Amino acid sequence: MKRREFFKRAGVGALAAGGVLATSQSHAAKRFNWKMVTTWPPNFPIFQDGVKRFAREVRKMSGGRLTIQTFAGGELVPPMQAFDAVSQGSVEMGHSAAYYWSGKVPAAQFFTAVPFGMNTQGMNAWLYHGGGLDLWHEIYRPYGLVAFPMGSSGVQMGGWFRKKINSVNDLKGLKMRIPGLGSKVMAKAGVNPVLMAGGEIYTALERGTIDATEWVGPFHDLRLGLYRAAKYYYYPGWHEPGPMLELMINEKAWKSLPKDLQLIVKTAAMAVNLNMLSEFEARNLEALQTLKNKYKVNVIAFPDEVIKQLHKFTQEVLTEEAAKDAKFKKVYDAYEAFRQSNSAWGEISEGAYARALKL
Amino acid sequence: MKRREFFKRAGVGALAAGGVLATSQSHAAKRFNWKMVTTWPPNFPIFQDGVKRFAREVRKMSGGRLTIQTFAGGELVPPMQAFDAVSQGSVEMGHSAAYYWSGKVPAAQFFTAVPFGMNTQGMNAWLYHGGGLDLWHEIYRPYGLVAFPMGSSGVQMGGWFRKKINSVNDLKGLKMRIPGLGSKVMAKAGVNPVLMAGGEIYTALERGTIDATEWVGPFHDLRLGLYRAAKYYYYPGWHEPGPMLELMINEKAWKSLPKDLQLIVKTAAMAVNLNMLSEFEARNLEALQTLKNKYKVNVIAFPDEVIKQLHKFTQEVLTEEAAKDAKFKKVYDAYEAFRQSNSAWGEISEGAYARALKL
Repeated sequence: MKRREFFKRAGVGALAAGGVLATSQSHAAKRFNWKMVTTWPPNFPIFQDGVKRFAREVRKMSGGRLTIQTFAGGELVPPMQAFDAVSQGSVEMGHSAAYYWSGKVPAAQFFTAVPFGMNTQGMNAWLYHGGGLDLWHEIYRPYGLVAFPMGSSGVQMGGWFRKKINSVNDLKGLKMRIPGLGSKVMAKAGVNPVLMAGGEIYTALERGTIDATEWVGPFHDLRLGLYRAAKYYYYPGWHEPGPMLELMINEKAWKSLPKDLQLIVKTAAMAVNLNMLSEFEARNLEALQTLKNKYKVNVIAFPDEVIKQLHKFTQEVLTEEAAKDAKFKKVYDAYEAFRQSNSAWGEISEGAYARALKL
Repeated sequence: MKRREFFKRAGVGALAAGGVLATSQSHAAKRFNWKMVTTWPPNFPIFQDGVKRFAREVRKMSGGRLTIQTFAGGELVPPMQAFDAVSQGSVEMGHSAAYYWSGKVPAAQFFTAVPFGMNTQGMNAWLYHGGGLDLWHEIYRPYGLVAFPMGSSGVQMGGWFRKKINSVNDLKGLKMRIPGLGSKVMAKAGVNPVLMAGGEIYTALERGTIDATEWVGPFHDLRLGLYRAAKYYYYPGWHEPGPMLELMINEKAWKSLPKDLQLIVKTAAMAVNLNMLSEFEARNLEALQTLKNKYKVNVIAFPDEVIKQLHKFTQEVLTEEAAKDAKFKKVYDAYEAFRQSNSAWGEISEGAYARALKL
């Protein structure tokens, strides 16, 4: 056989062999094209932007093996259907806050925020190293979901009110947008709590469909323009001291990922978790100053008497909910044990340091 | 040509083609075998363990393309030579605390801890979203290094003392192991500060070579057995309210990494950063209780008068150091501007919430 003929034939062989190699590689390097829905408005800074960044980084770190297409609330499914969409597997991932699903999973509320509960540092410690994440997986398993913490705003603001709150009596009869356990506490104070996604809040408040709303904190609240619809901006966010966002993943899809891709997803989510909080901490003050100085918003503390009453109502709500639902009770007990221990350590660490700064 | 002959020849071609493919892949998937030294004792929990975990996860996420062999302090180079080893490129990475290098890089101290400065949440906000990390890179560039935050203990303890501290006078003449800016503050109070790596502390304290030491917090201090050498355990850690650990990388080695491996390293470091703090938060209280209940350690607050004096000395030290070194001044000004703004936001977020909890 002539040399030229050999190469010609070998060329054909190379194509064939190339096909075989490609197949064997595509098994090892199987590609995943996933969809991810969120409960946030499109272009929502930090949250939706953080989700897009997460998707971009997972794609890069995985060398394109895991591509995640992201959709803001309403772009693929309505925001409040994100849980069902991921649970049923019509999409593989979601980014949200677990307390939105309290109607069907009451215990999920502990994985977002507990009124008068732990701040973000405590929540992270509980979830990553105090058994919290295992409980979360246990609670989500019946819905075919796994979840990981992915982002926190830090202590939120108490919310926007169209009229001044001088006592608990002033809360009576108010319609307020507030989710999670905070809404049940407010109900005890006579508030009519309403659950609505972020995109609907401004119009509702501006038209007087609601009298008050909590949302996130200065940076986001400024963007949403809430100062144009209400002039009293209360603190502190007693109802969400360390709100945690969630990365939900369809369990079957999760198990189909090779271990290295699972690790990339988990690591990216943990990095986003820290990154979001850090961005909030860096942006909130400037936004608050704009609200005060440019838009003449009254930034004002809840009266001590109101805080004390809400704290008392919180105890009642937690006790009542625990009596109604065994899973709620199980997570509550675990959360509360960790919180008490964390709080005792906080007394001589963060607490003692904060006190030292003021001497 | 017979069919059998075609496949036989094609087989030869497939090998050749396979060779070409393999070469082209090994270019895209170049392997990096790096070494990483630390300033920590071998098997040092959370810190050295976190470094090992970081290396393991980077290897997995990169599909084995970046393998990092880790060495505790002294295993390859003495702990206090880690900076030089990475700077000179004899190893590619190091894990440490930037204030250990204050002798040659005074401004580096801001990237670890400032007495009466920001806690971990504030440090992360400054570094990731307040311009801090850019400054850090600027300060390290002359040494051929890049750095990323990678781990924090949260507010530390004030330290172990062999005798009770009733006033600033009691500090005079004490030999104390304390690094960074805290050591200069203590010097103003009459302390003789000593810098030594963790592995040497216990023996020095037990033999009376030093009279006092700060180390980390209850979890680590218990492991080091410091309670056997001193009975007074002071809080809060005014000198290290949010100490940040560093991942140092030789700049030339860093630039040789493809973008996707750089992203894997940065993301893993950010995840470790959050993970270490969370583990500290979860472990410290139990350790503290063991120290109090089992080993009868006196866990005791510094007298207010001592704290006030140390705070005053801190202002003097920062002003003096800024006058001596232009880079120190540049970083100090940036740090201080962010700290003040962060502190104002803290007043109505974490601060107001902590107050609400006590009502």
